Amino acid sequence: MEANSLETKEVAQSPTLLSTDALLEHWQGHRKLTRRVIEAFPEDQFYTFSIGGMRTFAQLTMEIVGLAAPGIRGITYGDWTFSEPVLDHSTPAPTTKQEVLNLWDLVTEYIETLWPQIDPNRFYETEAAFGMYENTILNTLLYLIDNEIHHRAQGYVYLRALGVEPPAFWDR
Amino acid sequence: MEANSLETKEVAQSPTLLSTDALLEHWQGHRKLTRRVIEAFPEDQFYTFSIGGMRTFAQLTMEIVGLAAPGIRGITYGDWTFSEPVLDHSTPAPTTKQEVLNLWDLVTEYIETLWPQIDPNRFYETEAAFGMYENTILNTLLYLIDNEIHHRAQGYVYLRALGVEPPAFWDR
Repeated sequence: MEANSLETKEVAQSPTLLSTDALLEHWQGHRKLTRRVIEAFPEDQFYTFSIGGMRTFAQLTMEIVGLAAPGIRGITYGDWTFSEPVLDHSTPAPTTKQEVLNLWDLVTEYIETLWPQIDPNRFYETEAAFGMYENTILNTLLYLIDNEIHHRAQGYVYLRALGVEPPAFWDR
Repeated sequence: MEANSLETKEVAQSPTLLSTDALLEHWQGHRKLTRRVIEAFPEDQFYTFSIGGMRTFAQLTMEIVGLAAPGIRGITYGDWTFSEPVLDHSTPAPTTKQEVLNLWDLVTEYIETLWPQIDPNRFYETEAAFGMYENTILNTLLYLIDNEIHHRAQGYVYLRALGVEPPAFWDR
């Protein structure tokens, strides 16, 4: 995240394109697809299968969850501290896929609830996301979405290796 | 691509965030990272390695190239026909990785050359991208970027399976 080089001044200088509503819909569309990838995993392989020493899809899912929940809170309120009941990056996965999906849905609702409270100017503010990654709020969010696409795609390879047809990439 | 549901009206109704300059930089930043993933592949494995019946990274790279080149032309001029010397989706990979990288760089320059010619209002126009995928130009471009992240991430798994450390995801 450190190296993302989009600059606030450029955002302000050239015509703007993406609306806050469209950005939320873009994010939630990707989250819907990731949810379907979680669903597609056989229960046991979700927790155990990996390739080349990589994390299991349960662990990758928990990274996405553990960035999205404190992420939307930090984006909305500027509070990047971690405390219960907010998840962080190292929270272990619940022991059943259904509980992971329930957690996923909780985060989806949390995002829907907080989003309307975000001042649009907030997206241009530069802040150390998660207390570490100095960037504009917009770039931090785009990074979270890109990171989700990246790890979800690794799940696609796991599913293919397991002989399971993954959900269509274009279906949000 | 058919199911991408962002709507032009929403883009127009809520505050806009992403500038044309920032969008170009976002895209080219991802392209730089994908280029490093191509470079990281051992020459032979680039053309031969796959998991679960998926395409080789050479084939995945050619999909990205074959969408980016006619994509930026269609985005700029509204011309989605395919003709020489513009690549299409089914163009086979050049026979060496260096030639693929040269082609990659040519597309990067092509994007840089055409981008300033795009009228910013163009991004809100709805058009059948590649003659098939009805969407706003903005959503078509976001889809191309997401598709690149998705296939590149599959290359990350291939590299891990081959025991090769992939480039850092955050380094654009």
